[in-house]
Amino acid sequence: MRVLGVDPGLRSTGWGVIEQDNGRLSHVANGQCVSAGATLAERLLSLHDQLSEIMARHAPEAAAVEQTFVNRDAAGTLKLGQARGIALLVPAKAGLAVGEYAPNAVKKAVVGVGHADKRQVEHMVRLQFPGIKIAGPDAADALAIAMCHAFHLASGGRLAAALAKAGA
Amino acid sequence: MRVLGVDPGLRSTGWGVIEQDNGRLSHVANGQCVSAGATLAERLLSLHDQLSEIMARHAPEAAAVEQTFVNRDAAGTLKLGQARGIALLVPAKAGLAVGEYAPNAVKKAVVGVGHADKRQVEHMVRLQFPGIKIAGPDAADALAIAMCHAFHLASGGRLAAALAKAGA
Repeated sequence: MRVLGVDPGLRSTGWGVIEQDNGRLSHVANGQCVSAGATLAERLLSLHDQLSEIMARHAPEAAAVEQTFVNRDAAGTLKLGQARGIALLVPAKAGLAVGEYAPNAVKKAVVGVGHADKRQVEHMVRLQFPGIKIAGPDAADALAIAMCHAFHLASGGRLAAALAKAGA
Repeated sequence: MRVLGVDPGLRSTGWGVIEQDNGRLSHVANGQCVSAGATLAERLLSLHDQLSEIMARHAPEAAAVEQTFVNRDAAGTLKLGQARGIALLVPAKAGLAVGEYAPNAVKKAVVGVGHADKRQVEHMVRLQFPGIKIAGPDAADALAIAMCHAFHLASGGRLAAALAKAGA
């Protein structure tokens, strides 16, 4: 099963596609969408078109999007929400159920602790996929989200409940 | 020229289409999209599909979306942002430039004062379009946004600058 992970942002949206085969994970592709455009609507359209192209090229069968951390100013939260709306829409348009994970849940699933920093997350992604070229920090986060969702799917859907119970 | 106005929300998104002919406005249609779905991604897809259908049916040549008032909790702002992202995306996908107006700018343009309440806005919409049936308060707001954008376009693009100068 192919899994897409997305870490949305208005300037840069990370994405990663991995493959899960009987619990074994392999890397397919990763990257960062830089949203171009003079207006907000144009930047959102740019993000939409890039994510649609990634969906068409890699044909994931499952997708997950990071649940945004909302502890920032209202204007920043609104901007992030707009990008996140697009990130949720594009896989839903392709008929996929879209998983959502809080950043701490992703860290707990991938690193083992919910308060892991970004370098630890990237380190675990590199351990999982030896020799991988990672497009940038947002792509690393997106690969971690894809791993978290793959673990969840492989667990028969029990991981998300377990993470919620652990307060992650 | 046909103008679409959108007042986005995750539960209910108001929309209104008006026609401007040499400075005279007439009503075309209005309504409220109720977003259905078990997950956030499904609700955003439902909103996307309804707005796409409205675009296809009424073929507006210009569009404007309300600039969200961010004085609410972070979770609410994030939700609103997600719906707003879809509202901006759909007309942009059809190749339209999408105007954005703060609520106070819309009120100033339609009622004459930036602190007008919702009833005054609806009253002015009813005065402008005698006999109109308005689907609900979000649809009334959306019609006001469409009027504001129509005034702006009829003014040769000077209205938005004037409103910004007036602090609206």
